[in-house]
Amino acid sequence: MPIIEMHLMEGRTTEQKSGAAKAITEAITTSLGVRAESVRILITEHRGAEFYVAGVAPALKAQSIAGAELKKAED
Amino acid sequence: MPIIEMHLMEGRTTEQKSGAAKAITEAITTSLGVRAESVRILITEHRGAEFYVAGVAPALKAQSIAGAELKKAED
Amino acid sequence: MPIIEMHLMEGRTTEQKSGAAKAITEAITTSLGVRAESVRILITEHRGAEFYVAGVAPALKAQSIAGAELKKAED
Amino acid sequence: MPIIEMHLMEGRTTEQKSGAAKAITEAITTSLGVRAESVRILITEHRGAEFYVAGVAPALKAQSIAGAELKKAED
Amino acid sequence: MPIIEMHLMEGRTTEQKSGAAKAITEAITTSLGVRAESVRILITEHRGAEFYVAGVAPALKAQSIAGAELKKAED
Amino acid sequence: MPIIEMHLMEGRTTEQKSGAAKAITEAITTSLGVRAESVRILITEHRGAEFYVAGVAPALKAQSIAGAELKKAED
Repeated sequence: MPIIEMHLMEGRTTEQKSGAAKAITEAITTSLGVRAESVRILITEHRGAEFYVAGVAPALKAQSIAGAELKKAED
Repeated sequence: MPIIEMHLMEGRTTEQKSGAAKAITEAITTSLGVRAESVRILITEHRGAEFYVAGVAPALKAQSIAGAELKKAED
Repeated sequence: MPIIEMHLMEGRTTEQKSGAAKAITEAITTSLGVRAESVRILITEHRGAEFYVAGVAPALKAQSIAGAELKKAED
Repeated sequence: MPIIEMHLMEGRTTEQKSGAAKAITEAITTSLGVRAESVRILITEHRGAEFYVAGVAPALKAQSIAGAELKKAED
Repeated sequence: MPIIEMHLMEGRTTEQKSGAAKAITEAITTSLGVRAESVRILITEHRGAEFYVAGVAPALKAQSIAGAELKKAED
Repeated sequence: MPIIEMHLMEGRTTEQKSGAAKAITEAITTSLGVRAESVRILITEHRGAEFYVAGVAPALKAQSIAGAELKKAED
């Protein structure tokens, strides 16, 4: 049955997501010896304000650093 | 407590989703003997490039066949 | 694709879980017009110390009340 | 490892979500004695037609009551 | 961030699960261009009565066929 | 509605889990301004071979280092 839920930051193209799904399916069929037809993959994309490590959103931090850099560059 | 997460392809109307939630709630209260108030259902909708069977997205495949058919029809 | 994850308190029999899965599948095929073969249901069971409402575990509370009652009965 | 998936009704600001993630991370590090860096939080937002209690969507019910009130007010 | 939840039927060895996790991680780093350190995989195992396709548990069905065969063999 | 699924390595006591659930619920009610009764927390515990970072299970790695240390100690 392998059913996989993959959480990603938003921003990947359809090609990247399809490529990842294909590669993961192959990894599972090879390592677990199951038929490809039994592998289902669900992708859920998250925006910047929807993922936190240590209570901080890496995507928002990056924006804010980029903003700071930009600001510095403007000086 | 039954808490249900239901993953669906996007595209259903509010009426269809409400109807499904109502029918599932009745199915659970009847089969498990729990109070309706204890049943919670969360729906997460997925776009075409977010669901894969055997490493292929059925929704994208359908589009691409439709595209091919369309192309053929144009010939 | 409907893929359903159902969280339950542990303690149901195989017959109850099978009955619920059958009833939910019928509810989905009827309300959403999908084929039964496309409906997948995953059940995850949780023990008493793994489910909380308002920060309190209903199952542990029940035990503790039962324990208190029992204690009272013992007095 | 604590990995947390939090399901919310949509409509919170980035500040509210960041604030919740920070507060939850502190609650976990304090109560479980894990490092903040090991705590990951994923937020998934749901629209009104994607959450049901007892087979009814609280958000849609609220709209419909608001609609009825509005209608009444219009009379 | 890729965070993956993989649902499996119970019964795999630690080696099989480790092998699958390693293969999936490589598939993701290669296809999405992320660092291996950012990939987290959670496995949840399900027993026979916890997975249903079309309202029927494949694992229980298999047992029941095996039981019938066994019974036949006993005749 | 906040519904929280928290994935933990197994091994915490009921007191630790209850304490975490209580602390998280307070963190959510304070930061999001929702009623405690609307907060539901589900805990899923994972064994050593069910959680991987960069394709390696931290718990198994720890065991194997402990095993190596033990072996060294035995020499």
